[in-house]
Amino acid sequence: MKALVYHGPGQKAWEERPKPALQAQTDVIVRISKTTICGTDLHILKGDVPEVTDGRILGHEGVGIIEEVGNGVTNFKVGDHVLISCITSCGKCGYCKRGMYSHCEDGGWILGHLIDGTQAELVRIPHADNSLYKIPAGVDEAALVMLSDILPTGFECGVLNGQVKPGDTIAIVGAGPIGLATLLTAQFYAPASIIMIDMDVHRLSVALDFGATHTINATGTDVLAAIKKLTDGRGVDVAIEAVGTPATFELCTTLIAPGGHIANVGVHGKPATLHLETLWAQNVTITTRLVDTITTPMLLKSVTAQRLKPAQLITHYFALNDILRAYDTFANAAREKSLKVILTA
Amino acid sequence: MKALVYHGPGQKAWEERPKPALQAQTDVIVRISKTTICGTDLHILKGDVPEVTDGRILGHEGVGIIEEVGNGVTNFKVGDHVLISCITSCGKCGYCKRGMYSHCEDGGWILGHLIDGTQAELVRIPHADNSLYKIPAGVDEAALVMLSDILPTGFECGVLNGQVKPGDTIAIVGAGPIGLATLLTAQFYAPASIIMIDMDVHRLSVALDFGATHTINATGTDVLAAIKKLTDGRGVDVAIEAVGTPATFELCTTLIAPGGHIANVGVHGKPATLHLETLWAQNVTITTRLVDTITTPMLLKSVTAQRLKPAQLITHYFALNDILRAYDTFANAAREKSLKVILTA
Repeated sequence: MKALVYHGPGQKAWEERPKPALQAQTDVIVRISKTTICGTDLHILKGDVPEVTDGRILGHEGVGIIEEVGNGVTNFKVGDHVLISCITSCGKCGYCKRGMYSHCEDGGWILGHLIDGTQAELVRIPHADNSLYKIPAGVDEAALVMLSDILPTGFECGVLNGQVKPGDTIAIVGAGPIGLATLLTAQFYAPASIIMIDMDVHRLSVALDFGATHTINATGTDVLAAIKKLTDGRGVDVAIEAVGTPATFELCTTLIAPGGHIANVGVHGKPATLHLETLWAQNVTITTRLVDTITTPMLLKSVTAQRLKPAQLITHYFALNDILRAYDTFANAAREKSLKVILTA
Repeated sequence: MKALVYHGPGQKAWEERPKPALQAQTDVIVRISKTTICGTDLHILKGDVPEVTDGRILGHEGVGIIEEVGNGVTNFKVGDHVLISCITSCGKCGYCKRGMYSHCEDGGWILGHLIDGTQAELVRIPHADNSLYKIPAGVDEAALVMLSDILPTGFECGVLNGQVKPGDTIAIVGAGPIGLATLLTAQFYAPASIIMIDMDVHRLSVALDFGATHTINATGTDVLAAIKKLTDGRGVDVAIEAVGTPATFELCTTLIAPGGHIANVGVHGKPATLHLETLWAQNVTITTRLVDTITTPMLLKSVTAQRLKPAQLITHYFALNDILRAYDTFANAAREKSLKVILTA
């Protein structure tokens, strides 16, 4: 089969690889129908995720059809149409019993990271009973690819951890796909204002289309002063970091009102400075989270009911075997005005 | 009257001052029966709290008898025996309505900070209806002084923010009065283990008497290795910072298990480094809080019922007019084996 293979920092190839085989009774093999590229894949290609080794097939998102099933799998059969979660979970360990699938002792984020991933014609999914979801009939398959990772990530790490509630003023720093997924799902809880902050005019305009009430272009703007002006000097109730740099995280800690929540969503490669000399008395909560995907069933229902329309996040479609061009389009987001790209097998 | 007056960094005097007068209809004047000294007073004397200006009477803890009452006060009358909260709250502003008295728009921590405090024969208490508590008959007055600040601080900022629950393994970094107050109140929630970490052998021995299950002497010890050994390599569910230095805060962020809570209690004067490059995926929650004292009524009931015995925290008694000696004893805690000191008028 063909697959997108990582060959060390800066190196990738669309090349022939052996078909995956069942390795445990709880595995299934899925033939990919649609997959996508994540910002995390770009981080891997920059060399930021050293656990990913030469020869790894990338990708942790996708939908497909089950082609082979281990004897221990009870929820799925050959031919089932499934959504693949970016998080693999055994459902049996201490962390899984707490709903913290991200830290499953025999799973977590392993696809396209510690085991071969979904940017391929076929993929092996361990612990299939707990790591796949049946796709409801009649729902747009491309839209569902957004449920593998970015919608649960924006929702769990940003909206739920940020404890967004009706009447809140929230700031989302970063209007890329993850920031926009956070914006879409924040609206479940009817915040009074959602202020999107980015340096890309196009993305800020998309954010307004997606329901932001205000935007701040951080280029040449004093963001803190702009936020103070919008909040009668108080700061925001919830600040969501959806970039992954020390500067954007530290910005969130300045924008927050006393009693507020700072929810980190971004993947970070460097430490940040935490200004405890002011924050100690500000009654703030800071959270970090690798997505658990425990809200995937709820998000599936919301998409089916058309309360959530994730297809809005898709800007480009490619054939799977044109994935190198798709990477180029996704990586040059400002030039291409790209958000999520869909690859169809 | 006599009062302990701050005269700039390193300078204090027990001197004659005019008696306080009512300034608003909602004020009362309290004649102090007993007061104490807080670590925060030492911070002020070091010059760490620049808002405190020359001439300020220090102190934010105490019990006493009401001597004068403003016309707008309805809950209290002359002669009432009261506990003074370290936090003044109007009960009417947006923050008070949310129970965030620490950020009351006409109060918060002002006693011995922005207005004259309790280390005096008399003190003016603004917003008395919401900032004083009637003392139940028959309860040891000295013990109740511990409810002005350190018990609600340890409980709200450490135990409640840390979300301590049955079965948890918790680490408290710092076995001073605040760390020990956290230790006492953490036991409301029956954690499986409470590990106290300090560099003072005497305080660690006190911690064992107060209910700690394990102690770690940080002098010459690899604390992280010791915690990993005690927790099968996982780390603790809750880490409580009760010192107020970058090093102890950063230690807490290394001791924590995935999904854990880091509750800051310490007063900080410097920023810390937050290792987001590892923490981003660890599903941790970090909280800061200036005490709201919303749990004071509950703590009063617990003391009255003898479920909580705060008198254990008191090591030394002095006459109020001997306060300079009391400061010396409190400031030299290791030498004097001192925890809280009580000053009786």
